[in-house]
Amino acid sequence: MGDNDILIEIKYSGVCHSDIHTIRGHWGKQIYPQVVGHEIAGIVTAVGKNVTKFRVGDKAGVGCMVDSCMHCDSCKNGEEHHCETPGGRVLTYGAPDKTSPTGITQGGYSNNLVVTEHFAIKIPENIDLKYAAPLLCAGITTYSPLMKANLKRGDKVGVAGIGGLGHIAIKLAIAKGAEVYAFTTSPSKVNDIKAFGAKEVIVVNKIEDLQPWYGKLDYMISTIPYAYDLANYISCVRPYGYFTQVGQPINGALELNNSLMMNNRVNFNSSTIGGIPETQEVMDYCALNKIYPQIEIISANQLNEAWDKVVNKEARYRYVIDGASF
Amino acid sequence: MGDNDILIEIKYSGVCHSDIHTIRGHWGKQIYPQVVGHEIAGIVTAVGKNVTKFRVGDKAGVGCMVDSCMHCDSCKNGEEHHCETPGGRVLTYGAPDKTSPTGITQGGYSNNLVVTEHFAIKIPENIDLKYAAPLLCAGITTYSPLMKANLKRGDKVGVAGIGGLGHIAIKLAIAKGAEVYAFTTSPSKVNDIKAFGAKEVIVVNKIEDLQPWYGKLDYMISTIPYAYDLANYISCVRPYGYFTQVGQPINGALELNNSLMMNNRVNFNSSTIGGIPETQEVMDYCALNKIYPQIEIISANQLNEAWDKVVNKEARYRYVIDGASF
Repeated sequence: MGDNDILIEIKYSGVCHSDIHTIRGHWGKQIYPQVVGHEIAGIVTAVGKNVTKFRVGDKAGVGCMVDSCMHCDSCKNGEEHHCETPGGRVLTYGAPDKTSPTGITQGGYSNNLVVTEHFAIKIPENIDLKYAAPLLCAGITTYSPLMKANLKRGDKVGVAGIGGLGHIAIKLAIAKGAEVYAFTTSPSKVNDIKAFGAKEVIVVNKIEDLQPWYGKLDYMISTIPYAYDLANYISCVRPYGYFTQVGQPINGALELNNSLMMNNRVNFNSSTIGGIPETQEVMDYCALNKIYPQIEIISANQLNEAWDKVVNKEARYRYVIDGASF
Repeated sequence: MGDNDILIEIKYSGVCHSDIHTIRGHWGKQIYPQVVGHEIAGIVTAVGKNVTKFRVGDKAGVGCMVDSCMHCDSCKNGEEHHCETPGGRVLTYGAPDKTSPTGITQGGYSNNLVVTEHFAIKIPENIDLKYAAPLLCAGITTYSPLMKANLKRGDKVGVAGIGGLGHIAIKLAIAKGAEVYAFTTSPSKVNDIKAFGAKEVIVVNKIEDLQPWYGKLDYMISTIPYAYDLANYISCVRPYGYFTQVGQPINGALELNNSLMMNNRVNFNSSTIGGIPETQEVMDYCALNKIYPQIEIISANQLNEAWDKVVNKEARYRYVIDGASF
């Protein structure tokens, strides 16, 4: 531990599709052994001598990054995830790390984690650690673009892909005053999605099922983490509206049909996680407004099965590993 | 001729990459025989009895469309190219047309054209018909997104693909006060592009040549009409800026690297031609400000060779067919 670090005893660790993509090499070659996990919630058990933000016994969380340069404009503006110094941003797992015996950062499927205090999130007393964990990736990843979308009360917001991220996106968009239209390929999720508060659930069996929705939404966010018929989904947004992709497909490869794009006139953008101040903001917002992910607690020995279920769209809706089982 | 129609004797007809894509079936199956050409400039030789906008002897032009429903919101708002009535928008060539002996509309590589007066553009006296022709597709297609980009004086605007559309985009962006950065794969065009007024010309030999430009531009327009490494070009725009694709690749298929997109934070959109009021606007603007395309006049029997040169990036920069040679 350094003077600015804290030691966290991990109580809960969320299972993100990114963990699976990473370990399977979908996003590039990996160094093994690698411990993944970037939805980490626990209790502070030690603090370095310069630490001011945490005391021993505090609840603390860690998301997708554990360090950045802290002096570039992005870092100074609280966008540490867009750190401009080459190699400056250090992801929570799999990133080069000279201080690690394995040469890479190791993530949250673990008992303990050391992190610079700046990159730890304060978890309010009134939110259970098991609900806090998924907010550190799934929560911030959907919250950040929803906030940038400048939604007005009553705006029609589409959410495509209703898994770990999508179900939180629904709850957050509703909390911000939107009417939510959820697009899923899983008919078995319809009742759950209505219970999350969606105004309408569209089961997409074939791509033509999207056509009645062309131009109907003010904004749409897609969490779909595989290549898919992107432009048909984008076309559900009204002309000059915005569509944000947050799911990251294998090797980042997406296909975009320009014949649809030149008629739908929608602005497409992509987003990834969020900065530390905004991650703190979504944590505080969810604690205050009692917005909790729908989770299933598993033990470490159920992990292989859980990963298969995530890939097979059987998760309901976020697996969270009980830290006591590591 | 109907009561609302005018007859135009075609004096000049521009050669657009779209003509080639269409006839070769790159954008879908075609009906033949088909006469293409949608940059049409000529003299009115007859008018229907209800016509008020033109008199015999007037200069007139026709661009990419010749009809639309005229009662939907888009048509009423001067966005006839986005006519909302299915089948309402009728393109200048290759579109179903019950009044045509061939069953389809036939375009401007021809001596005469009949068109509803609404879809004809008034060509001011002080612009030569041969310069007016390319404004009817290349001009409006680049003008429309440039105007929507709300450029401020001194904004850095990138133009990718410096052919028929790109060279006009450069001239228009400069006229609107922008600093233009031109991206070309043709070193032989550099001097011309500087003469058009570009501040800097970037010769893209390999995709890595774009990296020094990441985040440097306020806005970028791409006229590249084939699939290409889109996200690397998009990354040249600053975070939260905009990038517009106007070139339409084969079958509209573009690939988009989301790994770049989620870091560049740029808004991508596509645009196609423009409405009739805006087409009139670019015509008047170019006439007033003496913004002329750089053209080469050819005769009809040079057309096959000209098409090959367009595909091989040898056009400098727009071929215009002398109507007398048809």
